[in-house]
Amino acid sequence: MSEILILGGGGMVGQKLAARLRADDPTCSLTLFDLGYPPEGVASATIEVGDLAAPGALTDLAQRRFDTVYYLASVVSGDAEINFSKGYDVNVHPMFAFLEALRAEHEATSGAYFPRVIFTSSIAVFGGPYPAAIPDDFTTSPQTSYGAQKLICETLVQDYSRKGFIDGMSLRLPTICVRPGKANLAASSFYSGIIREPLNGQEAILPVPDTIRHWFASPRAAAGFLAHAATLDTSELGIHRALNLPGVSCTVADQIEALRSVAGQAAVDLIKPQPDDAIFKIVSGWPEAFTADRATALGFRAETDFCQIVETYIADELN
Amino acid sequence: MSEILILGGGGMVGQKLAARLRADDPTCSLTLFDLGYPPEGVASATIEVGDLAAPGALTDLAQRRFDTVYYLASVVSGDAEINFSKGYDVNVHPMFAFLEALRAEHEATSGAYFPRVIFTSSIAVFGGPYPAAIPDDFTTSPQTSYGAQKLICETLVQDYSRKGFIDGMSLRLPTICVRPGKANLAASSFYSGIIREPLNGQEAILPVPDTIRHWFASPRAAAGFLAHAATLDTSELGIHRALNLPGVSCTVADQIEALRSVAGQAAVDLIKPQPDDAIFKIVSGWPEAFTADRATALGFRAETDFCQIVETYIADELN
Repeated sequence: MSEILILGGGGMVGQKLAARLRADDPTCSLTLFDLGYPPEGVASATIEVGDLAAPGALTDLAQRRFDTVYYLASVVSGDAEINFSKGYDVNVHPMFAFLEALRAEHEATSGAYFPRVIFTSSIAVFGGPYPAAIPDDFTTSPQTSYGAQKLICETLVQDYSRKGFIDGMSLRLPTICVRPGKANLAASSFYSGIIREPLNGQEAILPVPDTIRHWFASPRAAAGFLAHAATLDTSELGIHRALNLPGVSCTVADQIEALRSVAGQAAVDLIKPQPDDAIFKIVSGWPEAFTADRATALGFRAETDFCQIVETYIADELN
Repeated sequence: MSEILILGGGGMVGQKLAARLRADDPTCSLTLFDLGYPPEGVASATIEVGDLAAPGALTDLAQRRFDTVYYLASVVSGDAEINFSKGYDVNVHPMFAFLEALRAEHEATSGAYFPRVIFTSSIAVFGGPYPAAIPDDFTTSPQTSYGAQKLICETLVQDYSRKGFIDGMSLRLPTICVRPGKANLAASSFYSGIIREPLNGQEAILPVPDTIRHWFASPRAAAGFLAHAATLDTSELGIHRALNLPGVSCTVADQIEALRSVAGQAAVDLIKPQPDDAIFKIVSGWPEAFTADRATALGFRAETDFCQIVETYIADELN
C-alpha cells in the first residue's frame, strides 16, 4: 500500500489532489499536513494540523518515511513580495530542512529509503523578455521573490536527486484557473475572479488591461499533473528535474470571450475594470506561453482552450 | 575614501584582487576576511582571521557598512561534491545570513546604506547539452553541488538587488588558469597543474583526454573583472544580475601546444596522462565556450588566446 504525504494538503490544489488520489486508488494511505483545512475536506485522509516552518515539524514528518511526498505548501506571490522575510521563512528554509531530514532517513536505511518528492514550482521562475512560446530550455531569472524562492527550491530538489538522496522533480505549474473559493493575495488571483465571481452572480474587479496574455490550467488539470508525476519513470527526466507543464495561452479578452460564450453577456457585464499598478507590474512580467514539449512527451495533459477551463469550473464547482 | 571588504581575501583570487585594488587606488581602505592567509600577503590591507560560517561572523562584518563587498569565499567544486553538508554550510547559508545582515543595515539607515556586493559565481551553474558557444540567456541547470550552491546565491543576490536592499551582481568566472601555488580539491585543478608544474620543472598529472575543451581566464584577468565590477553602472545590468564573463576557449591539446610554444618540448614531456574517471565525469559536463556578449559590452576584458595566459603566469609568478 502506497503511503502518500501532501504538504499543504489543506490548500485548494492539495484538496483537489487528495480527492484525485483517493479516486485513483481507494487503498492508498493519504496524510495531509497544513495550517488548516476547509470544512468540507476530503474523506478518508489523515488530517494533521501544523506549521511546516515550526522547528522540527518537517523532521518528524520525514521520519515517517512516506513513499511519495507532494510539497505544495507555499506563501503566494503577492504575499511573498510584500512580506520579504515571511516568503523566505516559509518558501525556502523549510524545504531545505525537509530535504536534509529526508537525506538523514535515506542514510539511516543505507539508501533503501528513496522517496518520490514532487515539488510544485511555478512559471514565476522565469524573467523576460520572452519569446512568443517559451522553450523548455529557456533560462530562469526570477522577477519576484516568489519566483526566486521557487527557483532555489528547484535547485535543491535537483541537487538532492542528482546525488541519489531522493527521487525528486519540480513541476512548473501554469496559473491555476478557475480557482474556487475566495480571492487570495496571489497577484494572479483576479484571473480566476473575473470568471468565478460572474458565474456566481457577483461583480469582479479586473486590475489589468484585457490585452495581457497568460498561461493557464484548471485545478482538475493540476491534480492530474501531480497524480501523473507520482507514476513517472524519472530516468526519462535525465539531469533536468524541472518541467514546464502544458496549459492554455490566452489573453484576458480571450478569457472574457469564453465566459460570454458559456454564460452570456450578463455575466461579462459583472466584470469591472479597476486598474492596479502593483498587480500590473507583477503580472506584465510573467510568461505568456510555453512549448511544454518535454512534459507533453512525458504524458502530462492540460486543457486546450479556455472554454474547457470555464466548463471544468462549472462541472466541478457549481453542479 | 572607499571602504572595501573582501570575503575570502586570503585565497588566490582574493590576494590578486587586493593587490590590484591597492595599485588602482592607494587611498582605499581594504579589509580582508578569511580562515587564513599566505605568508607573503598583500601589504596595506587589514587582515582579519575568522570563519564566515561561524554564528554572527558575517553580521559583525555587515554592521561595519563597507561600501563595496567582494564575496569570494567558497568551498571548491571537488570538495563540495565529496562533502555535501560542508558545501551547503559554507557556500549557501553564510550568504543568506550576510544578505540578511546587510538588509538590516539598509533598513536601519532608512535605505542610505546601499552596498555594492560582487559575488563570484561560476560557469558550473550550467548543465549540458551545450551549444558550441553558450549565449548569455542560456538556461542554468547545475550538475554539481557546487554549481547548485552558486546558482542559489546568484538567485539571492538578484532578489535582494531587485528589492533595492543591495546593489549586487554575480560574475560567472571562467576557470581561472594558471593558478599559482599548489593543486587544490577543485576538479579543475589539473588545468593549471599541467602548465604550472612543467614551468617549475615538475611532473604534472593529466587526468582527462586532451580533447576536452574548456573556458579560461588568468588570475590577472579575474582581478581585472572584479575591479571593473565595482565601477560598473549597474543600471545597465537591468533585471538580470548574473553575467557570463569573457575568456579563452581551448582544448587540453591547445593548452599543451601553448606550453610547447612558450617553454619547449621538455616542459611538455613532464605531463603524464593518468585517467581519473571521477574528475572526467565532472569536467566533461562543463561548458566549452561562451559568447559573453553582455559582459564584453559592459567593458569586461580577458585574454584572447592561451599563449597569453601562459605568458601572464610567467610574468606574474616566475619573475
